[in-house]
Amino acid sequence: MASTGHTVKAFDSDLGQIRGLVSEMGGRAEAAISASIQALQRIDLEAAAQVVQEDRRIDELEAEIERAVLRLIALRAPLADDLRDAVAALKISGVIERIGDYAKNIAKRVPLLSEMRSSEPMAILPAMARSVSDMVRGALDAYAARDAAGAVAVQEADRHVDDFYNSLFRTLLTYMMENPTSITESAHLLFIAKNLERIGDHATNIAEMVFFAATGEQLIERPRGGDPLAVEAE
Amino acid sequence: MASTGHTVKAFDSDLGQIRGLVSEMGGRAEAAISASIQALQRIDLEAAAQVVQEDRRIDELEAEIERAVLRLIALRAPLADDLRDAVAALKISGVIERIGDYAKNIAKRVPLLSEMRSSEPMAILPAMARSVSDMVRGALDAYAARDAAGAVAVQEADRHVDDFYNSLFRTLLTYMMENPTSITESAHLLFIAKNLERIGDHATNIAEMVFFAATGEQLIERPRGGDPLAVEAE
Repeated sequence: MASTGHTVKAFDSDLGQIRGLVSEMGGRAEAAISASIQALQRIDLEAAAQVVQEDRRIDELEAEIERAVLRLIALRAPLADDLRDAVAALKISGVIERIGDYAKNIAKRVPLLSEMRSSEPMAILPAMARSVSDMVRGALDAYAARDAAGAVAVQEADRHVDDFYNSLFRTLLTYMMENPTSITESAHLLFIAKNLERIGDHATNIAEMVFFAATGEQLIERPRGGDPLAVEAE
Repeated sequence: MASTGHTVKAFDSDLGQIRGLVSEMGGRAEAAISASIQALQRIDLEAAAQVVQEDRRIDELEAEIERAVLRLIALRAPLADDLRDAVAALKISGVIERIGDYAKNIAKRVPLLSEMRSSEPMAILPAMARSVSDMVRGALDAYAARDAAGAVAVQEADRHVDDFYNSLFRTLLTYMMENPTSITESAHLLFIAKNLERIGDHATNIAEMVFFAATGEQLIERPRGGDPLAVEAE
């Protein structure tokens, strides 16, 4: 920790370290999304187990960030804007921890899925996972650069992910009706699709926090339209 | 806000107010769980819409608690234990906000469910909702009383909720196979059951925070057993 006399610089340096930890944590969560979907495509139990194992490091980073933020507040007694920045790091790390959990939950379902590798739903999931992973990266880049426009782009991408989800929801239900013997596998895929959709929501939450921190204004929630299936995307 | 000269007393008084807001927020989330399941049982669209509407107040309370905690930290510059208490209120309010969201999501599915009112899965959900609601109340009571034993009891109750969920998961899949025309409704019920199960997890998270605050030690995570279906409960 910086020990120079000037409190403002010391605060900036400490906060910079914390922001670095948040970026590292985000990078790990993003990697976990891709790894879990790859493990799913290949029904690779070892790779899936590794995603579960590596989620511990994400959880540890959250605890590390919390300790660092508390220490920063206690030592530097930051005022309004700086305090808000420090608390934002705490909140964003909480959201990243949840993203990591969703990726872990996807990986945990891999051993329960042995069929369906060539099914239509299985073909849509990787594309959806890529979109979601891009959103997480976009949100973290916007955080690192305090980039309001980047935050808006992430929010807009969420519409695309919701469309993916609604399409998968319908496809999976049709598949279930036509293949009653694989209903269990389909139900697991339904939850996996939902997990990806939720990751998109959480990336949007981060983007909203970044936008607020950068502009002092709330990012207006995009309308979800009147489609009765829109509830699936909530 | 107290304006007496003694900083420690002023801090305690401010934190007491914040803890009161957390309790109010928790009470509203608990009420939302029961109200959403009642609306579901009766397919009462108006009651469901009210749950969605009232979730805004829960979100507002979270923002109010965040502002109060930031003001408390900025004004009183609390040291280690007090700072941790203030941040715990922030974190617990974040978890309650998520519990409120799950109840809202259940309510949002009510208009999509018109059949199945007399089905077997429909009969299990209310009992599961009661267990989950009791867990939330238990976690909040433990928070209010800084009661480590109460926190342990909440964690133990989560096992019961997971059993409910696993039983519902199997029942719903069987129902889907036997009633392919009602697969959409069953899928919504599957998500509702999952939402309740997640509320149980979040009540457990609050209990773990309460236990740590009261004892300085981590509550050991209960083993989940080797049942391959245990992943459903994650």
